[in-house]
Amino acid sequence: MDELLALLRKKEKTLATAESCTGGMLGSMITAIPGSSDVYEGGVVSYSNEVKCRLLNVPEELLAVHGAVSWQVAEAMAEGVCNATGSDIGISITGIAGPGSDGTEKPVGLVYLGYCDENGITNRKLLLQGNRAEIRRETCRKAAQLIMEMLQE
Amino acid sequence: MDELLALLRKKEKTLATAESCTGGMLGSMITAIPGSSDVYEGGVVSYSNEVKCRLLNVPEELLAVHGAVSWQVAEAMAEGVCNATGSDIGISITGIAGPGSDGTEKPVGLVYLGYCDENGITNRKLLLQGNRAEIRRETCRKAAQLIMEMLQE
Repeated sequence: MDELLALLRKKEKTLATAESCTGGMLGSMITAIPGSSDVYEGGVVSYSNEVKCRLLNVPEELLAVHGAVSWQVAEAMAEGVCNATGSDIGISITGIAGPGSDGTEKPVGLVYLGYCDENGITNRKLLLQGNRAEIRRETCRKAAQLIMEMLQE
Repeated sequence: MDELLALLRKKEKTLATAESCTGGMLGSMITAIPGSSDVYEGGVVSYSNEVKCRLLNVPEELLAVHGAVSWQVAEAMAEGVCNATGSDIGISITGIAGPGSDGTEKPVGLVYLGYCDENGITNRKLLLQGNRAEIRRETCRKAAQLIMEMLQE
């Protein structure tokens, strides 16, 4: 996470997080580093669908049609956390960390990341292996990587 | 955290978190446990003062007069996360995890927890020892303890 923070400082961008299946782990990893408040604003742990709607303004229709674990919801969460916090960059995480499924045919380890900045919104689909803890940790690493890739473009 | 989740289920209460210095660690610890979505809604990582105001409705005046690390702000965060998420219980964390101070005379290791439920709002002051990681972890344990104490009253 040091590299991510250094890049955010270099580019003079602030970051906010919207986490579902990781439940705050990405924010916790970022704020483990002293001085992260320079570039990290905070964000939303949108574990329930209600919080996704209330705090991130995710349309209920998106959740009903595509499910919480979808690129559409990931993108809406990323945009929502930018709008809610006023940050330059929003990163979102929604996925199935297991061990159980989410009641659909989507597999454990399916995660969507959403990314929003002044240039627009995009997403990335992940299919991760491992147990719940491994999937959550790897998701956070991939989210940090995605932010760095987008910042370096 | 298993004991906390079991007690929330027994009392049929939902929980939301508002974290400053722990940056999402409490939410991450709760959601490490499969099935936590039964009782855990999510919440806000209010690392910056702007997020405390925008998402938790903490009055700017409280921050200006008492500082972010104060029982007044802890209580406002706990109430704010209940209102924002619609959860039965709100727990908040604001403190100085170090190694640096917050620019005031408040010591590293000073943490305020806020707790809000249908019966009202209260707070607890902690003075913790250790490095940044130790202070953050101990803060999360104390926050879980406070919720359990309040639920058992």
